[in-house]
Amino acid sequence: MEVTTVGQYQLVYNAISFGIAAFAAATVFFWFGRSQVAPQYRTAITITGLVTFIALYHYLRIFESWSAAYKVENGVLIPTGVPFNDAYRYVDWLLTVPLLLVELILVMRLPPNETLSKSLRLSIAAALMIALGYPGEVSGGINTARLIWGLISTVPFVYIVYNLYVGLGESISRQPENVRGLVRLARDVTVFSWLFYPIVYFAPFVLPVTGGTATAVIQTGYTIADLTSKAIFGLLIYAIAVRKSEAEGARGLTSA
Amino acid sequence: MEVTTVGQYQLVYNAISFGIAAFAAATVFFWFGRSQVAPQYRTAITITGLVTFIALYHYLRIFESWSAAYKVENGVLIPTGVPFNDAYRYVDWLLTVPLLLVELILVMRLPPNETLSKSLRLSIAAALMIALGYPGEVSGGINTARLIWGLISTVPFVYIVYNLYVGLGESISRQPENVRGLVRLARDVTVFSWLFYPIVYFAPFVLPVTGGTATAVIQTGYTIADLTSKAIFGLLIYAIAVRKSEAEGARGLTSA
Repeated sequence: MEVTTVGQYQLVYNAISFGIAAFAAATVFFWFGRSQVAPQYRTAITITGLVTFIALYHYLRIFESWSAAYKVENGVLIPTGVPFNDAYRYVDWLLTVPLLLVELILVMRLPPNETLSKSLRLSIAAALMIALGYPGEVSGGINTARLIWGLISTVPFVYIVYNLYVGLGESISRQPENVRGLVRLARDVTVFSWLFYPIVYFAPFVLPVTGGTATAVIQTGYTIADLTSKAIFGLLIYAIAVRKSEAEGARGLTSA
Repeated sequence: MEVTTVGQYQLVYNAISFGIAAFAAATVFFWFGRSQVAPQYRTAITITGLVTFIALYHYLRIFESWSAAYKVENGVLIPTGVPFNDAYRYVDWLLTVPLLLVELILVMRLPPNETLSKSLRLSIAAALMIALGYPGEVSGGINTARLIWGLISTVPFVYIVYNLYVGLGESISRQPENVRGLVRLARDVTVFSWLFYPIVYFAPFVLPVTGGTATAVIQTGYTIADLTSKAIFGLLIYAIAVRKSEAEGARGLTSA
């Protein structure tokens, strides 16, 4: 998938650069904020910052790869022949999507056994979801491989969504009242922002999304979805940690 | 050993980049986590982070070297003539493998004399194991030098495994009950992930492992083995330190 006009190229270029700035800022914010939550929430905030840090790394690489794939000369876009490496996105998701789920579970502060079992099950499902989608992604455009791997990858996706609403839904209703709404919102933001990925993945089967415009929309859309599911979601996790730290008061702040 | 297709090249490329992101994230996690364990376990966690930090450095260099050895132009893989430097892996192991064993010993918090003597003996054996394997590795493919150096290097390997199961096995059974299983698991993960290295080393004598596919499998396999023996192993060490800190309570937290 290639862009064809200077405008398309620059839109994606600027969106990726925006991603770099936003993820860098988010990382610093979370890591500074770590010391402002009670010790029992610090691991959750460390991981929140790790997710945006890993995304920052990959956006720097994506930027590099995007810049190397094209050059603009005298107002004309010229592909250089060096391929744009879209795999960085999958490598990023393979690491960050399991961690996003762990963040949410950690900030809820469930009993240790429940934390471990839920973190493990959801992380493995998330890693499977990404890994199973990849062979379809690299198989090219509209073909059976994309459809089959996509459908297989939907199984862990549905499993995660089901668990977030049913298994975790129950745990959410046991959260302190002052954060219950925020925890639900964080969960909903996750699921809602994730919907963009399968839509893009399966879009070629339904719509004539080929050509430069489609590529520009997809790359920019991935960037917006990543920012929502990592940085904005992270801010919600941070807000939950701050509120819970305040409610648990001095007791929490000395218990570590 | 060289790759021959764009797919093989990119698989290794993406695996190395994944390694960079994962080791960077692990390092930050361990160094932040240092303050969340009792002072008597902080050195173990510092070293856990050092191991992934040293690996991060080497993976950045490996990435650079891999990128310089090939270029992809218009869908074709072209070797540039600059050789890929596989020695980075041995330099990395020479530093990190002794430290990995020290981590495990430190988190067990044995009597000071035992800590010192076990750390020294196992570190020296680990350094010997790596140093003795190297001349065989650079001797080329299937030849007597590879076989002889490989077999000599197996002596310290067997010595370490024996010590982890017999000498240290006894100490493990004296660990507090709430961490005994985790310490055993950390030990087993070490030995299990290490098995990959001699398998790759001796494989050319048994299997026709030449050509691009073998190179891609070996490089990706090394990456997975490194991630397991350093980052995942490190998480187990961290979990052990957290549990022991909690069990030893406030006493531990004020004793430094």
